[in-house]
Amino acid sequence: MMSTTERVGPCRVAIAGFGTVGQAVARILSGDIHPSLQLTHICNRQVNRKKVGWVAPEVVWTEAFDDVLDGSVDVVVELIGGRSPARDWIEQALAAGVAVVTANKQVIAHDGVSLGQAARQADRPLLFEAAVAGGVPIVRSLREGIAGDRLYRIQGVLNGTCNYILTRMEREGVAYADVLAEAQRLGYAEADPTADVDGFDAQAKLAILIAVGLGCEVGVDDIPLGSIRPISAIDFSYAKRLGCVIRQVARAELLPESGQIRAAVQPALVPDDSSLARVEGTQNIVVVDGEFGGETAFSGFGAGGEPTAVAVVSDLLAIARGAPGRQATDVQARRPVAREFDAPHYVRFMIRDRPGIIAALAEVFSRHAINVDAVWQEPGWAKTELPFVMTLESCGSASVTAALNEIGQFDFHVRPPLWLPILSRGEARA
Amino acid sequence: MMSTTERVGPCRVAIAGFGTVGQAVARILSGDIHPSLQLTHICNRQVNRKKVGWVAPEVVWTEAFDDVLDGSVDVVVELIGGRSPARDWIEQALAAGVAVVTANKQVIAHDGVSLGQAARQADRPLLFEAAVAGGVPIVRSLREGIAGDRLYRIQGVLNGTCNYILTRMEREGVAYADVLAEAQRLGYAEADPTADVDGFDAQAKLAILIAVGLGCEVGVDDIPLGSIRPISAIDFSYAKRLGCVIRQVARAELLPESGQIRAAVQPALVPDDSSLARVEGTQNIVVVDGEFGGETAFSGFGAGGEPTAVAVVSDLLAIARGAPGRQATDVQARRPVAREFDAPHYVRFMIRDRPGIIAALAEVFSRHAINVDAVWQEPGWAKTELPFVMTLESCGSASVTAALNEIGQFDFHVRPPLWLPILSRGEARA
Repeated sequence: MMSTTERVGPCRVAIAGFGTVGQAVARILSGDIHPSLQLTHICNRQVNRKKVGWVAPEVVWTEAFDDVLDGSVDVVVELIGGRSPARDWIEQALAAGVAVVTANKQVIAHDGVSLGQAARQADRPLLFEAAVAGGVPIVRSLREGIAGDRLYRIQGVLNGTCNYILTRMEREGVAYADVLAEAQRLGYAEADPTADVDGFDAQAKLAILIAVGLGCEVGVDDIPLGSIRPISAIDFSYAKRLGCVIRQVARAELLPESGQIRAAVQPALVPDDSSLARVEGTQNIVVVDGEFGGETAFSGFGAGGEPTAVAVVSDLLAIARGAPGRQATDVQARRPVAREFDAPHYVRFMIRDRPGIIAALAEVFSRHAINVDAVWQEPGWAKTELPFVMTLESCGSASVTAALNEIGQFDFHVRPPLWLPILSRGEARA
Repeated sequence: MMSTTERVGPCRVAIAGFGTVGQAVARILSGDIHPSLQLTHICNRQVNRKKVGWVAPEVVWTEAFDDVLDGSVDVVVELIGGRSPARDWIEQALAAGVAVVTANKQVIAHDGVSLGQAARQADRPLLFEAAVAGGVPIVRSLREGIAGDRLYRIQGVLNGTCNYILTRMEREGVAYADVLAEAQRLGYAEADPTADVDGFDAQAKLAILIAVGLGCEVGVDDIPLGSIRPISAIDFSYAKRLGCVIRQVARAELLPESGQIRAAVQPALVPDDSSLARVEGTQNIVVVDGEFGGETAFSGFGAGGEPTAVAVVSDLLAIARGAPGRQATDVQARRPVAREFDAPHYVRFMIRDRPGIIAALAEVFSRHAINVDAVWQEPGWAKTELPFVMTLESCGSASVTAALNEIGQFDFHVRPPLWLPILSRGEARA
């Protein structure tokens, strides 16, 4: 009843996409650690440019994906990234009876449910541990390790680039643009940083965590995003006065009454002794809350060739051990995304000073039924570009944005106001 | 090749041992979260005393373990604790073709290898996620989630009672005996606290982590222990001056050259910004280092009925999904335990003051080739019971104990000297 047919000989593995992660996977498979895995094919565009001497001479190098589906391969590792042609390749592999391991967050976030159905139909596993938080085994932990619990909240720092930028800004008081430029020089940020700093990368990862951990499919693009671009050095100094640091936080909650999913990716103030605050540099963390197990936290290297390769190889080993062919996003329902989180808020203004500004702001907030908690202004700034901060008592993000849309019409702004939720220790602690 | 025979109907579960964890497991199984699991038997001594109304009326209550092996049960959950008769019951269940889930750290630490062979022979799974770190899914993460890596170090705070006592002493400056008494009142510590405070509990857990994470069997009793009993409030104040806190740390390393395992459970100074330091109260953490993935950390509630029940139920779900019958401690070799860790050390003396003490101590350390780094003495203590601290440059624990054995012969001690390794940030950080 519980028997599993065991394979004879090692599991034959093809790598599609021989970039940083593909090379790190090939390195691990070329060592003697995992005798149950055998690298047999490497598929890449302009493959001659890619050839290296340290893989076994029997490995087939090819530019044609069809070559890896010729019947001799057990698993394809899809590392080409992007939604197309990755999605088609995954479907082709499954249809050809070949298992798939992928690190592709976009494909899994957008097409995970239908690809999961294809995997079940083909009775072949489709595993994607590497798609979220690199070497941190969060997908398997949610699906198996704490499967016995009923989770209701997931929070994480899922983008190493943002975390590197924000922790450097915090520690050294450097401007966003300078840290970004340095991160780009060091290879921690892309030439076009949009996917990272505007939240799209974490958005896709959060959609996957919602599917795996909360059992719900959401429209990836329905998860609202906030960019870290408008954050200034001054915000860290105000955050510090509130006992907080600033992190790009991806979070989702399952609302028990409505069955709705509440989700967002945005910079937020988190208490400096919380788990989310303690993740520094390019590390990732995922903190989950369950009805029975309470808070459990998982942290480690969220990116980089080798940590991501560990996730890929762990998936390969699961397949070699005989993972069942139903391992894809098992979602129970498609759910709408509620954008409304209640929280105290931090709002930073940058203004040309004149009398009556605070009164004008307070009047708008009051009209939106938002209570102002405190007004803070550090000394020593020019009247022509004066930062000051208002903290708001707990209120919905929709009310804040509505009030700020109205406030944005005033003529005294030098920069648009920045608002960040202030997560409580209970919401950010492990 | 990768097919798994799927079961028909829910997986039938018997609980042996209806204490805190057993009741929490029964509660979860009695809800509607996991339709693939059905509670069918509860076995306990004096079972009539234990009966509760909230389990389904079809559940069989029995005092005879044989009743649960009558052929109608798929899995036994062993929660009776202790080595005997638990070990025999597990063997009987496997021999009867019944899978086993256990939270029993002593049985798995001491008999895991032979029970694993029994499980393989019977082709039935023996799972034990709950035996280490309660709700933190560390066993499955080591075995599957980061199986692709080659781990060389495991460190953890594995005993919630010690951590509760040490974090309370640190925060409130209370004496050990007072915090222990309070912990006993609150149910966080046993009437006989030996297993927790002297390290036996963490020793068994560490032996399991060594087997699962480093692939080596060690003699459980070969792992050296240090008690937290001699720690005083004054030690936290000196630790603070060193930027450290005190934690009961369980750690193990695989030495690549010799293939030896280095292991110990003892109180240690850890930097206050390290992962190990950040675990407060009854929480647990496990930090692992891998050749490819770097440091990965797992934290959460290490004890308590509900978190432990989550681990048990997660194992049950794995069996219901068709976990292969080879899931036990897969050790590659039995390895000797090297007791020698190199580290800087903290040594605290409590003396009756007289001239020449420092010179006498320095002479002994010097003869053991140990360099004294600093001597510290806080003002305001009576000459008749004077605490002072020496920190030692990095040296082996064997040299420290040899020197301190000799030093112990001096007549100026009011209490025996206390020595604690000082773990560096690199050794304690995530």
